[in-house]
Amino acid sequence: MSDALGPISGSLRLVTFLTDFGLRDPSAGVLSGVVLAMTPSARTLDLTHAIPPYDVEAGAEALVEALVHLPVGAHVAVVDPGVGTQRRPIAIRCARGDVLIGPDNGLLLPAAKALGGVAAVVVLDDERWWGPNRSHTFHGRDLFAPVAAHLAAGVPFGELGSPIDAARLVPATSLPLEAKNGELHTVVRIVDGFGTLVLAGDRSDIDGALGVVSPGDPLSVTIGDETTATVWANRFGDVPEHQPLCYIDSAGRLALAVNRGSAADRFKATRRTPVVIARA
Amino acid sequence: MSDALGPISGSLRLVTFLTDFGLRDPSAGVLSGVVLAMTPSARTLDLTHAIPPYDVEAGAEALVEALVHLPVGAHVAVVDPGVGTQRRPIAIRCARGDVLIGPDNGLLLPAAKALGGVAAVVVLDDERWWGPNRSHTFHGRDLFAPVAAHLAAGVPFGELGSPIDAARLVPATSLPLEAKNGELHTVVRIVDGFGTLVLAGDRSDIDGALGVVSPGDPLSVTIGDETTATVWANRFGDVPEHQPLCYIDSAGRLALAVNRGSAADRFKATRRTPVVIARA
Amino acid sequence: MSDALGPISGSLRLVTFLTDFGLRDPSAGVLSGVVLAMTPSARTLDLTHAIPPYDVEAGAEALVEALVHLPVGAHVAVVDPGVGTQRRPIAIRCARGDVLIGPDNGLLLPAAKALGGVAAVVVLDDERWWGPNRSHTFHGRDLFAPVAAHLAAGVPFGELGSPIDAARLVPATSLPLEAKNGELHTVVRIVDGFGTLVLAGDRSDIDGALGVVSPGDPLSVTIGDETTATVWANRFGDVPEHQPLCYIDSAGRLALAVNRGSAADRFKATRRTPVVIARA
Repeated sequence: MSDALGPISGSLRLVTFLTDFGLRDPSAGVLSGVVLAMTPSARTLDLTHAIPPYDVEAGAEALVEALVHLPVGAHVAVVDPGVGTQRRPIAIRCARGDVLIGPDNGLLLPAAKALGGVAAVVVLDDERWWGPNRSHTFHGRDLFAPVAAHLAAGVPFGELGSPIDAARLVPATSLPLEAKNGELHTVVRIVDGFGTLVLAGDRSDIDGALGVVSPGDPLSVTIGDETTATVWANRFGDVPEHQPLCYIDSAGRLALAVNRGSAADRFKATRRTPVVIARA
Repeated sequence: MSDALGPISGSLRLVTFLTDFGLRDPSAGVLSGVVLAMTPSARTLDLTHAIPPYDVEAGAEALVEALVHLPVGAHVAVVDPGVGTQRRPIAIRCARGDVLIGPDNGLLLPAAKALGGVAAVVVLDDERWWGPNRSHTFHGRDLFAPVAAHLAAGVPFGELGSPIDAARLVPATSLPLEAKNGELHTVVRIVDGFGTLVLAGDRSDIDGALGVVSPGDPLSVTIGDETTATVWANRFGDVPEHQPLCYIDSAGRLALAVNRGSAADRFKATRRTPVVIARA
Repeated sequence: MSDALGPISGSLRLVTFLTDFGLRDPSAGVLSGVVLAMTPSARTLDLTHAIPPYDVEAGAEALVEALVHLPVGAHVAVVDPGVGTQRRPIAIRCARGDVLIGPDNGLLLPAAKALGGVAAVVVLDDERWWGPNRSHTFHGRDLFAPVAAHLAAGVPFGELGSPIDAARLVPATSLPLEAKNGELHTVVRIVDGFGTLVLAGDRSDIDGALGVVSPGDPLSVTIGDETTATVWANRFGDVPEHQPLCYIDSAGRLALAVNRGSAADRFKATRRTPVVIARA
């Protein structure tokens, strides 16, 4: 990117949304409507609105998972338990060229890192780019979506507000993850729609703790209080139906699944359930 | 708007949808598909498809909440327990320029009022603008979406069907709301995805019943059979975590929430639960 | 269609998605993002992502229901319990001009039939059209969506991979359906969002088993173990509130509903529950 403070390059004018609003009311759809009202040429795309309410970490996780596969754009993320307090509304320019827009609560930083790192940060304190409504409780509609619309219309990043030092942003939380005694001690990051347990850690973590694992290697996995025998595998079909498997998922994360079943149901696991993986 | 019977102005060609279809089957997506099949240049936008089945009032409420923030367009709303009976399919031209399309059952009128009032109404009795399918049970797909597609293609409002008198439309229901003895007697309008209770009434209603309320004013609120102490506040962060607050929400409505919690769970409240607010 | 192996005709560049991914994580939104990253001029449309996990039949059913009302396009369908095994990734050219993209597991064939029949089939073995990621578990993102994006960009169908004989595709399953003793023996195909039971069979099946049925004809319907009296009707409003009715739904399928109620709840029916319909 030649100019971290310049406009978003390219002709797509993409604005994406990731929130914890749910789909029960029109809040999610209104975000797109607000953008289209200001910038009719924008393309809007909903990533998900089903982040568990107020769960900043799960939102940060999902944002990374999605954005690495998307084109450069203005990405609005709202999981914002502190809306209306002193927490700052910010925009982060990433080295890849994207702009992340949302609250300064750790939600945006992991995605910024995944998109090449932070190139610049501004506090969204220039009211020229806000919307006509000014509620205390719906900054997604009244502040973040309008800012994204202006970016999509070509407003340079550097004009959005006052620059601040990236080192002073609220940091993202990190999940417990430790290698000891030939075991990997981790936790459930998220449970996906199939009941797969996505764990903290990636290939380097599992290989570092157990030595390089290969398809078919027998493993012993303890999920909460329950220990089960499983194997390392490349894909679901490598194990019989209804059998568990450990693998690296499509986002490069360590995962535990049950072929054609739900690992979450089988092992009564939810986010943050401790998981220990060892060779059997 | 210079001509209430003319085409929709502007270049956006926006068609929006709000229904009670849910997302379990492709019905919601088919609405957009039908519009794109007829008018490829249209922009479609889903507001929500999670209106509780057959709940005309909740649909009317959500339509108001959404449309005031959207650009001018053709807005299809379908919550239609009377589909296939004698209830009339209608389109309402609003003073702002929008066209609302759906059943004549009170669903559209509150939004028409919010968009500047009713400028003209037609019954959708001109089959030139209907789709090729003619089911008795899916007017969203076979009648309303095709009419919206034709509007997006530039068909003048006045050609959609026979004009009728707005005074003869089925009226919207109104919620109980009364000031007496220094108390505001209201009910839960809707419960949002965070468990916030949106109540009937706005700032003028609460100020009229209790005298002007200010942040920090102590209140006594009775939800169903349970009475709780709370305060008037501007934003969630004005009260400690897990404490309730009364405030005006981002749509200008009276609301009762719990900071980082669910008021609906806490007070076992659902739509129509009676709520009485008084000074403590 | 003049050339089964040529590019998709028309200017819409429509790409649609139907999956069992759910909306809890951003997987569904990522599909559109992948297409827009490759082909910014594409139009993406979500049909549904709520097919029950791994339920190929329900997916096939929903795909038919949706696509017959959509414009010609590239349609990605992913209900894929065999992802990562030897099941083949395929694309089917339909006589109407559409291209169906997904796994060779019976998911696509009923829709191909509904869109005029199979004109040509290829295995997606040309890696030029795949995405930059190559996971074993997310072919929707890494293979099917990229292929659709290339089709939307004008790549001819015949270049997507090696041609195969349609007769060698994995067939779709068929539901039990039999006329005997003046009764129609069928099963619940799907339950829609209103609790309506969509049954195997259409008008010719019911007329063939019982003789031509007319509105008002009294029927006896056995759902699982429970027998109820009902009538043949054209629309919900033809019976009193909370009464059941048999009718042909908006997709031409035999159906059993309860006016302003849920037939699924009332008769404790789910997919595959046996249903017998006879004249009363």
